[in-house]
Amino acid sequence: MVRLIFDPKIREMLEPSAVAVIGASSRPGKIGYEVLKNIIEGGFEGDVYPVNPKGGEILGLKVYQSVLKLPKTPELAVVTTPAQAALKVVEECGVKGVKGAVIISAGFSEVGNYDLERRLISIAKSYGVRIIGPNSAGVVNTSLNLYACLEFRVKSGPISLISQSGAIGGVLFAYARASRIGFSKFISCGNSADVDESEVLAYLAGDEGTKVIALYMESVKRGRHLIEVAREASLIKPVIALKGGRSNAGIRAASSHTGSLASSYAVYAGAFRQAGIIQVEFLEDLFNSAKALSTQPPARGDRVAILTNSGGPGVLTTDACESLGLKVPEPSSELKSKLMSILPPICSVRNPIDLTANASYDWYFESLKILLSSREFDGVIVICVPPSFMDSTLAARAVIDARRFYPDKPIIASFLYGDVVEEGVKLLEGNQVPNVSSPRGAAEAMKVLVDYGRIKFGRKFGRRFHG
Amino acid sequence: MVRLIFDPKIREMLEPSAVAVIGASSRPGKIGYEVLKNIIEGGFEGDVYPVNPKGGEILGLKVYQSVLKLPKTPELAVVTTPAQAALKVVEECGVKGVKGAVIISAGFSEVGNYDLERRLISIAKSYGVRIIGPNSAGVVNTSLNLYACLEFRVKSGPISLISQSGAIGGVLFAYARASRIGFSKFISCGNSADVDESEVLAYLAGDEGTKVIALYMESVKRGRHLIEVAREASLIKPVIALKGGRSNAGIRAASSHTGSLASSYAVYAGAFRQAGIIQVEFLEDLFNSAKALSTQPPARGDRVAILTNSGGPGVLTTDACESLGLKVPEPSSELKSKLMSILPPICSVRNPIDLTANASYDWYFESLKILLSSREFDGVIVICVPPSFMDSTLAARAVIDARRFYPDKPIIASFLYGDVVEEGVKLLEGNQVPNVSSPRGAAEAMKVLVDYGRIKFGRKFGRRFHG
Repeated sequence: MVRLIFDPKIREMLEPSAVAVIGASSRPGKIGYEVLKNIIEGGFEGDVYPVNPKGGEILGLKVYQSVLKLPKTPELAVVTTPAQAALKVVEECGVKGVKGAVIISAGFSEVGNYDLERRLISIAKSYGVRIIGPNSAGVVNTSLNLYACLEFRVKSGPISLISQSGAIGGVLFAYARASRIGFSKFISCGNSADVDESEVLAYLAGDEGTKVIALYMESVKRGRHLIEVAREASLIKPVIALKGGRSNAGIRAASSHTGSLASSYAVYAGAFRQAGIIQVEFLEDLFNSAKALSTQPPARGDRVAILTNSGGPGVLTTDACESLGLKVPEPSSELKSKLMSILPPICSVRNPIDLTANASYDWYFESLKILLSSREFDGVIVICVPPSFMDSTLAARAVIDARRFYPDKPIIASFLYGDVVEEGVKLLEGNQVPNVSSPRGAAEAMKVLVDYGRIKFGRKFGRRFHG
Repeated sequence: MVRLIFDPKIREMLEPSAVAVIGASSRPGKIGYEVLKNIIEGGFEGDVYPVNPKGGEILGLKVYQSVLKLPKTPELAVVTTPAQAALKVVEECGVKGVKGAVIISAGFSEVGNYDLERRLISIAKSYGVRIIGPNSAGVVNTSLNLYACLEFRVKSGPISLISQSGAIGGVLFAYARASRIGFSKFISCGNSADVDESEVLAYLAGDEGTKVIALYMESVKRGRHLIEVAREASLIKPVIALKGGRSNAGIRAASSHTGSLASSYAVYAGAFRQAGIIQVEFLEDLFNSAKALSTQPPARGDRVAILTNSGGPGVLTTDACESLGLKVPEPSSELKSKLMSILPPICSVRNPIDLTANASYDWYFESLKILLSSREFDGVIVICVPPSFMDSTLAARAVIDARRFYPDKPIIASFLYGDVVEEGVKLLEGNQVPNVSSPRGAAEAMKVLVDYGRIKFGRKFGRRFHG
């Protein structure tokens, strides 16, 4: 566990009792106004100090003319001044004893101003002030109602996100709001000039509020170190990553974005594997995977049962599972007989188990119990596309009820019908069953549970992992 | 065009002046009740005749005891009786002179009852009654408000769907409702025992209400014929397909689903290419592609400009474009200068064109005009992830306004922020600009426009197609 040691200042700045917003502005639309507003409206539990040489009052708070004049030393300074001014601000933070600064100001290495960034970090280091950013979109700690960022707020929950893109955080927050799930911490690393992904990862590995760590990254400075930290962290909780900048043009785009050179994708893929980091392919997967991992146990093998009330989505989900390397085997004749004893002959029991459009609560509930208790399957995807006369909450209720008997086997729901299944999905997600509304997405969510099973139960298939 | 000839009975049954629902039931939850209810509540413009030997009245309509006793000969009979009873029903339809029957009843080849299906078709053929199904989920023709199916209704629009899965239709309808787009026709072919995809495709190719034909298929009986029809059809309007049953287990699943053997995926992929059918990979792509093709012109080459206000999503969209075979080239120095003359230095103009979080209406509008008018790009993806102080309708308005000047170059919007961009997306989609809310999805939607450009402008890259 020695590798999970991190600078305690990281914790102090992410769990502050007071925050200064430097470059606070009274003009809506300015970053120094919007961040302050977000912190206030988010209901931050500690003290908030706007700082601006002009003084006065913003959003009902007294404005201090400099960090040096603050009545108390905040652990965190959020810097929104122009890039040039940030250097002096950081120096004053050092003098005052601030633990760390999140520099939202842009105009550093990402636009070629390498020297300015070096000087910023050198000043910070000389005072022992830790820097997140520059070019960060801010930080969030929902357990303190701290929203020191420009993103719309999200409720408290089990996922923490480390991101080299602020907007990716915003998009995942939007997915989360639509999915009734929440986030614990969000750290936008920006140019990662000082505090980098590895250090934040080490902090989150030990953070009680964080059940799953999601990572969006385009480049890494200390790759070896990240691998070492991730190897430890991933034994404690799942770490999933989406790599941006995989194609030639994507690498060029990434270099304009965070000012560092992205390496070849193959190198990353290998490193992620070595580090126990579960890699996902698409942005929506990063969220769906985090959702799945935050509520479901890891799978002990890769054999998936698909229970459905409609053929087409069953076929597509089967295709998606196999293309992701999962198995969708036919049940043994014993298991088939068991299923056939509770289902009418119109149902297919060859996997997908197709309950047809006549599926009832009982068919879902009874077959799900059989599948969850069977040693032939390691996880179940439950599809529901209700015909007009079926209430999706019946199928949802069947899933929730069956799951109670067998909480150790993962379930992914795939209720596919948008507005029609809204109530069913609400019920599922309110009861810790993740719903992923596309066949490929559902397969991918199951795959990460299998991946995490591999990591958790021995980093390779062992006797207890059926692969 | 000789290959696009089809039995005129297909048109008559899909554009009927009267419909009989045979096996009509007064019990909610029964298919014979729900289909009738859907037809009545959908507001079908013609006559509706429930048929049931018991007679009486259902949902306010007089029930006839047999098809033979109907006051007028309907063009379409919708059959919801048990499988065995369907044979006699079809015979009576033949005697009465009904043009065609949609057999929703299941229990034929899909569960191994091949002989029953053969007898059904043989009776139908002897009377010249055309059969859609059996095991069909029904048919929809929104221009007549005809919803002879179990799926929830959808508004009228440019997309028609031929599907071997009823549920896939239902799921696409749900996507459409969420996206303010509509469908023209939906034909669920079920087991395709008589009328098959080829015939419906030939009909839709000439159907004025259909601008784009989407196809979900698991298997095909007359592959050569389908290719021939599709080659003609795809020159008139885009034909896109999703193939279900690609993996070994998926093929097994498909055979349980529609009772026919799916062939190898490679064979299909080759045939689709030959036929000018644009193939998509995932279910959500089938909808997004149809949406894109129904509103945007085909692209005249594969060079994509990406205009964004946030780095991460720009990087991911670039990756997705390249992985799909599209090019995301850096602009020439002339074009860069042009962009730089209207944008501040903080913006990157290397493609993605990154307007940063400070993006305004003007920046979007002016750079989009430059990109749309440039000969260096064949299409533009416009990304917007608005910071908390930006109204997404501003960016949407900029897209709509710029597009007016250059309607011949395709645009895909990718406003990524769920609830936050709802108003902007409404504005875009109300003005014929499709929004696809994931980087990969947006790239895929652009790719089908490039694919269709290839088909439309010469089936291969010509001088006017930059590839």
